[in-house]
Amino acid sequence: MAFLRNCWYAAAWAGEVGDRLLARTILDVPMVFFRDSAGRPAALLDRCPHRLLPLSMGRLRGDSIECGYHGLTFDCSGRCVRAPGQERIPPAARVPSYPAVDHLGMVWVWPGDPALADPAKLFDRLPQWALSQGEEPAWGLNCGPYTHVKCNYQLLTENLVDPAHVTYVHTTTLGTPAMADIPVETTQHGDTLLVTRWTLDSPAAPILQRFGKWPGNVDRWQYYWLYPPSIAVVDFGSHVPGMDHSDAARDAGIRIYSCHFLTPETEGSTHYFWLQLRNFAQRDAAVSREITEQFVLAFAEDKAVLEAIEAAEARPMITERVKLALDSGSVRLRRTVARMIADEQAQPRGGATA
Amino acid sequence: MAFLRNCWYAAAWAGEVGDRLLARTILDVPMVFFRDSAGRPAALLDRCPHRLLPLSMGRLRGDSIECGYHGLTFDCSGRCVRAPGQERIPPAARVPSYPAVDHLGMVWVWPGDPALADPAKLFDRLPQWALSQGEEPAWGLNCGPYTHVKCNYQLLTENLVDPAHVTYVHTTTLGTPAMADIPVETTQHGDTLLVTRWTLDSPAAPILQRFGKWPGNVDRWQYYWLYPPSIAVVDFGSHVPGMDHSDAARDAGIRIYSCHFLTPETEGSTHYFWLQLRNFAQRDAAVSREITEQFVLAFAEDKAVLEAIEAAEARPMITERVKLALDSGSVRLRRTVARMIADEQAQPRGGATA
Amino acid sequence: MAFLRNCWYAAAWAGEVGDRLLARTILDVPMVFFRDSAGRPAALLDRCPHRLLPLSMGRLRGDSIECGYHGLTFDCSGRCVRAPGQERIPPAARVPSYPAVDHLGMVWVWPGDPALADPAKLFDRLPQWALSQGEEPAWGLNCGPYTHVKCNYQLLTENLVDPAHVTYVHTTTLGTPAMADIPVETTQHGDTLLVTRWTLDSPAAPILQRFGKWPGNVDRWQYYWLYPPSIAVVDFGSHVPGMDHSDAARDAGIRIYSCHFLTPETEGSTHYFWLQLRNFAQRDAAVSREITEQFVLAFAEDKAVLEAIEAAEARPMITERVKLALDSGSVRLRRTVARMIADEQAQPRGGATA
Repeated sequence: MAFLRNCWYAAAWAGEVGDRLLARTILDVPMVFFRDSAGRPAALLDRCPHRLLPLSMGRLRGDSIECGYHGLTFDCSGRCVRAPGQERIPPAARVPSYPAVDHLGMVWVWPGDPALADPAKLFDRLPQWALSQGEEPAWGLNCGPYTHVKCNYQLLTENLVDPAHVTYVHTTTLGTPAMADIPVETTQHGDTLLVTRWTLDSPAAPILQRFGKWPGNVDRWQYYWLYPPSIAVVDFGSHVPGMDHSDAARDAGIRIYSCHFLTPETEGSTHYFWLQLRNFAQRDAAVSREITEQFVLAFAEDKAVLEAIEAAEARPMITERVKLALDSGSVRLRRTVARMIADEQAQPRGGATA
Repeated sequence: MAFLRNCWYAAAWAGEVGDRLLARTILDVPMVFFRDSAGRPAALLDRCPHRLLPLSMGRLRGDSIECGYHGLTFDCSGRCVRAPGQERIPPAARVPSYPAVDHLGMVWVWPGDPALADPAKLFDRLPQWALSQGEEPAWGLNCGPYTHVKCNYQLLTENLVDPAHVTYVHTTTLGTPAMADIPVETTQHGDTLLVTRWTLDSPAAPILQRFGKWPGNVDRWQYYWLYPPSIAVVDFGSHVPGMDHSDAARDAGIRIYSCHFLTPETEGSTHYFWLQLRNFAQRDAAVSREITEQFVLAFAEDKAVLEAIEAAEARPMITERVKLALDSGSVRLRRTVARMIADEQAQPRGGATA
Repeated sequence: MAFLRNCWYAAAWAGEVGDRLLARTILDVPMVFFRDSAGRPAALLDRCPHRLLPLSMGRLRGDSIECGYHGLTFDCSGRCVRAPGQERIPPAARVPSYPAVDHLGMVWVWPGDPALADPAKLFDRLPQWALSQGEEPAWGLNCGPYTHVKCNYQLLTENLVDPAHVTYVHTTTLGTPAMADIPVETTQHGDTLLVTRWTLDSPAAPILQRFGKWPGNVDRWQYYWLYPPSIAVVDFGSHVPGMDHSDAARDAGIRIYSCHFLTPETEGSTHYFWLQLRNFAQRDAAVSREITEQFVLAFAEDKAVLEAIEAAEARPMITERVKLALDSGSVRLRRTVARMIADEQAQPRGGATA
């Protein structure tokens, strides 16, 4: 399977990369993540070119990594700066390095052509995140724990343009029976997909009712934004019935941006980073904890379903798959990602893409 | 490897299939077992034809199964009866179903051509089972727990036409040294095999002496009936020495029918259902428990040996296998099953076999 | 991968082979080890030629093994001496046997052509072992526990001609920073490799300082003797600075022979037997225990590194490996072993090699 390589991917929560060396495979490439003495993140291939020992089993020495077998030492660029027992450093003694930066509380890595890595291409569609920092945040922030899912990343992303699954997978957390038969609307804006669903005049989702405390029914919205290949922002919330559907009207209700950063580990496994931003109880750490706990439960429900599908795809037993109206988001998403990957592979290696 | 497909196989104990959905692979086909609102068993392919989620991860809704991902709902025949979010049910939305019936306290399934499934072909050579039901049973019944064995089913069935292994495998339960050198007699009745051995005037097996309480030696019989491909009934027991070998004489002794229902899960693993019927202490639940416990121990001995052989067959290391006189049952059994499978495969698909 | 087959390999500690049957794979051959009634070790292929049950699951009967399935019985030469249920023993009923002897406290086996097995070819370069036996031993002996390592044996042997790794792998036990940049000297004596390093006027290794109690710096030596394919004796120790490098001068210091007997289990796993001989505190069991404990820690460090390399070699990610000056021992060792294997394979099967 091909991946889109010239792209920034979330690789770790910022706090996972620090004094200790972090081994993590990104797009099938074993990488070691660390920080130099100034705190800047760095990523190298997790192999010593001498005997192949993963560098993550070595030691951080200032701005460099020392191999745990014979002490070969590499700087953040992958250049060998010391070969114990000899003066001359062999020219072959270098390891590939990968551009890495801090962004949105995570370390991001560019697994493709380093010449094309540009911080301006980092995901920039989440202005609320900056507003969640500081003493008087306008948005409350909670982050989930690092989550590993044993399925292809596209099973996760298609799940994130799919409001229809909520009723059946998230029975105890996010879903309500009323939504089951309400059709969704799918539109495309450049490469970005938007899938929306309004559920009018019906009971609030359990997770929101706790904060909205509405006396009766609500209007509920779900806006699933999918930024290919694998970032999703789900804008969802509720307000009293009858208000308009404008951004301002949604801001006046209880609103959550549920943000999903998915990074292929291998063809059959995915790193999953997620966080929520909310427009209520912004500074209340207990609310942050509660929301995290709710989503831990909800995503465990997704994980069980998607890992079972990943396993079943190895033995499909079915020759013709059924297509449903609710697949429109998934179909467009897979088509868009396939085109992006085909475009990338058609480019001359190292060619300009800006 | 080929299996005989047009055949009833024991798939589950009756009590395993009920309110919850039971996932079980039969002859390499993942199936989900459930009961409709009238309690009738049903079996479907354990795959939703939409995204492949195993239906066993969904929910029972009346007489139907609702998929746990998007709520597609299938009735007992595999027909889709509901597709959430749309009026029209896509014609491709159906899953294969397999005939299933209750029999002998188990749910049986027919993995082959449904048109050929006939309840009259169910195993009917165990009249004692019906006599074990009710208030005043003529036969006592005990059932073993569901047992999973990681070996091909034919390693198990050939073990069940093989009195010779008892001395060496079941040293603590069923075997006695006296039997080691007594030859067995193998006869064939249609497809059915019968292997017999009489051990005259020798100590009783530990498991029977506890109930027979003979003062001295006994005559012991073992009649191994094998109904291909994979049902075995071992009629064994003891009486005082010198009696004749007739069925009536055996009934006058301590007699057990040990019944084995073997169902291929995959080429290398088998579902094992077993029960015993006895002509003594018929209503004594403690005796049922004791017999079950003894056979749990004995079959654990078989399981250890047969799983080791299954593993060794992946690396035989031996080019020429030794053939022994005691192999006659095994040789005939494998030849019979091979012929039955060849016959089935030679038939036009869906052709009449009655 | 090819192994050198016509060679004695350590297969087990003497005490591992006795009343119970020991199953152990040697050079990809599953073997069962046992002792006859006179205590002599024997090794057979761990397969009954009837149904392939590993003979190690059977029982020791006098000088023979009885199969745990049907009682076929084999003597130490692999000849079948009993076939239950029949008079005639089938000619094919025999299993390969492998020459096995006791030596240096271990059972050794010859996996190659039995006609070439000669006790005179047993490893004889360790006269200190004999001097460690008896009431007044000149050398103290401690033996490690049986150790299993999931890597190819050549990763272990090249580690044993490699003084350079000590500083980086054994930071808490054997290594000191002073040694890192001191070059090693590699010489070859027939097939035997010798890699030496002297570290002059520097602090003693922690493990030796405890016994040497030197007031200041010491001269440290490491003589790595490697007897291909896979036996290593590391002569190491320390004495006060300025003494000559002769054998007698080393005997006057604190001296340990650390002996390593490596036997391929499979291409990717190795049996590891190790012991130390010391010229101090010869009869002190507490010192033997302490040395064993120290080396258990040190070899766990090697094991972690080498198993990570074995795993990484399945996905190297690096096309050109770096070569360093410190590789000279490894390069010569691999070349020597490759030549020995090529020579063996060029010989007519069963031809004379003496």
